[in-house]
Amino acid sequence: MAALIEEGDASAEVAIVYADIKATRGVDWINNFWKAIAVHPATLKRLWDNVKQVMAPGALDPLTKEMVYVAVSITNNCPYCIASHTASARAKGMTDEQFAELRAVVGLANETNRIAIGYGVPVDDRFQTP
Amino acid sequence: MAALIEEGDASAEVAIVYADIKATRGVDWINNFWKAIAVHPATLKRLWDNVKQVMAPGALDPLTKEMVYVAVSITNNCPYCIASHTASARAKGMTDEQFAELRAVVGLANETNRIAIGYGVPVDDRFQTP
Amino acid sequence: MAALIEEGDASAEVAIVYADIKATRGVDWINNFWKAIAVHPATLKRLWDNVKQVMAPGALDPLTKEMVYVAVSITNNCPYCIASHTASARAKGMTDEQFAELRAVVGLANETNRIAIGYGVPVDDRFQTP
Amino acid sequence: MAALIEEGDASAEVAIVYADIKATRGVDWINNFWKAIAVHPATLKRLWDNVKQVMAPGALDPLTKEMVYVAVSITNNCPYCIASHTASARAKGMTDEQFAELRAVVGLANETNRIAIGYGVPVDDRFQTP
Amino acid sequence: MAALIEEGDASAEVAIVYADIKATRGVDWINNFWKAIAVHPATLKRLWDNVKQVMAPGALDPLTKEMVYVAVSITNNCPYCIASHTASARAKGMTDEQFAELRAVVGLANETNRIAIGYGVPVDDRFQTP
Amino acid sequence: MAALIEEGDASAEVAIVYADIKATRGVDWINNFWKAIAVHPATLKRLWDNVKQVMAPGALDPLTKEMVYVAVSITNNCPYCIASHTASARAKGMTDEQFAELRAVVGLANETNRIAIGYGVPVDDRFQTP
Repeated sequence: MAALIEEGDASAEVAIVYADIKATRGVDWINNFWKAIAVHPATLKRLWDNVKQVMAPGALDPLTKEMVYVAVSITNNCPYCIASHTASARAKGMTDEQFAELRAVVGLANETNRIAIGYGVPVDDRFQTP
Repeated sequence: MAALIEEGDASAEVAIVYADIKATRGVDWINNFWKAIAVHPATLKRLWDNVKQVMAPGALDPLTKEMVYVAVSITNNCPYCIASHTASARAKGMTDEQFAELRAVVGLANETNRIAIGYGVPVDDRFQTP
Repeated sequence: MAALIEEGDASAEVAIVYADIKATRGVDWINNFWKAIAVHPATLKRLWDNVKQVMAPGALDPLTKEMVYVAVSITNNCPYCIASHTASARAKGMTDEQFAELRAVVGLANETNRIAIGYGVPVDDRFQTP
Repeated sequence: MAALIEEGDASAEVAIVYADIKATRGVDWINNFWKAIAVHPATLKRLWDNVKQVMAPGALDPLTKEMVYVAVSITNNCPYCIASHTASARAKGMTDEQFAELRAVVGLANETNRIAIGYGVPVDDRFQTP
Repeated sequence: MAALIEEGDASAEVAIVYADIKATRGVDWINNFWKAIAVHPATLKRLWDNVKQVMAPGALDPLTKEMVYVAVSITNNCPYCIASHTASARAKGMTDEQFAELRAVVGLANETNRIAIGYGVPVDDRFQTP
Repeated sequence: MAALIEEGDASAEVAIVYADIKATRGVDWINNFWKAIAVHPATLKRLWDNVKQVMAPGALDPLTKEMVYVAVSITNNCPYCIASHTASARAKGMTDEQFAELRAVVGLANETNRIAIGYGVPVDDRFQTP
């Protein structure tokens, strides 16, 4: 079980990141992922900078990004990641029906991935254009 | 390399599925995935029925579903699946910028999945509610 | 692309393993897997000893073992392993229909694995007995 | 933790599937996998139809199919799936010795998969025939 | 949960391996991995022989080998393996800072692996030399 | 196949990163990974900043970091990543013997990971301390 750096125990370097997480997300608490990696402040800052940049609204909306995150996390079997990004997706509006459909797509993609691999299907010429 | 059942060589059983694929998708050709699994008509029919049901418009729109499919296929490293579902996503309107953001989310999710696992992060109580 | 140690270039240490592979399998050639790892004779000997022990007839028959090997190789997306163990399974009697059913099971298992993970299904008490 | 739809709380749509599961398998209870996915009846029906078709006796006997399912589930690290399909395999006659050999094959295949990938072994011409 | 063969219950065949594990490692106890696989003595002996050979000091020092083991175990999401090989790495001198950097490399490699796959990056000619 | 942004076609934003890659690494060319992701300059800059930070000399030496990268890339089956990081490791001094031992550890770790999972080995109390 990870050691967790609580807000009250944070160094100045860690506290700055914690404050930015709370301000950026508009929340008043820090979830365990950040408290665990705070044992290595360089990793905390690096990953938060990445998440802040990649998950910001862009050509894809934040909910779509969270659902993609959940899809990857299910495929990789990361319970923490499934729990935290499902919570984020729900907070951004994901409904029960959408979540059920998301998991159905993830399941089926995992099946047909192995069918394509198992049959050694060659890529169609029409799909080769970049 | 997979044996491929071309349309001209399809049995009646296979031809019915091929016709439904073309009609449902509004296309005039069959991509190699279906031609490869057509060597086993029960698998062809089963998987087509699944794809038709799961990928139909629902609570999630078809483009989001295709992007989730691409995300899983990248995570699993299935080149055929990446090529075919990227083509489908582009046909449904995915832009270059959206594709770039999608791959950024997939990449980062794969990183933080292993960070969460590597640190043994415990699930926050607030995330436990189903 | 791997460097391959051909039979004519094998050291005495490698030649002994090559001879045992041919004698054990009743074949007159060495497939590329062994020629590649022969650059490190300790690995060649170690892995051949493992394969010889694990794949020998036992409580499971050799064909079942080869089909399990193919199932794992498809799940891991190892084209060399799929090709070589499919050839071995065919040599031991696997029919086209059996191969098609094998791939269907592998595909479906990959789907339901992610469904179980994505829904966080708790293990039933009845399944807990060792 | 998944919400579970108990038999007494099942809608008519769900109850029909539950009844078919019990009748097809000759059991008097429903395991948690089905109770979890019953929150989305379309997924429940779809996956049960798939499992019923794919796992039925065919060119491969049901025990072989269950053991392949276990092999995939171990490779993917799905504890629920390992527990439930191991129970099914035992119910179909898998002995302790067979289970031990199965896990040995799965382990070794996972090793040699990475050795083949790590050495970049080219597929032998003799293995190229479809 | 695995059945565990305690030292007091070990057959002669198992006891010999247990004694060799303790002597080779200079420890006075057996960790659960070995106690679990001891239900199948051939697997116990085979895997111990492999671990003893592969993890011995060689061109790579034992600490580097343990850290590679941890990297693979995190990538595969095996909590037991992470716990046991992290303990071994710490016993061989891994510091907190080294462990943090190790996990950062593992995380980033998992990200860029999917970026390379997702962009379909062709291997540079300069990297093709074996 | 990825579109590649050659140095002569790089925008000012991309050229700055290319120049930093060459200066930091002391090389006079850009490998395809960066040319592929340069289609999305924000991703190019983000990933280069990450690689520069994570792979810099620290508590772990650069060669160990490269070998860990190779280990993850083999486990994930990413041929581009194996090729590029093997070249980097060789440039930093990895010998043939070290590379062979590295792949042996990766292979064995992948095996014992699945054995631990397949047997459901419980984590020893002694390994629980953080």
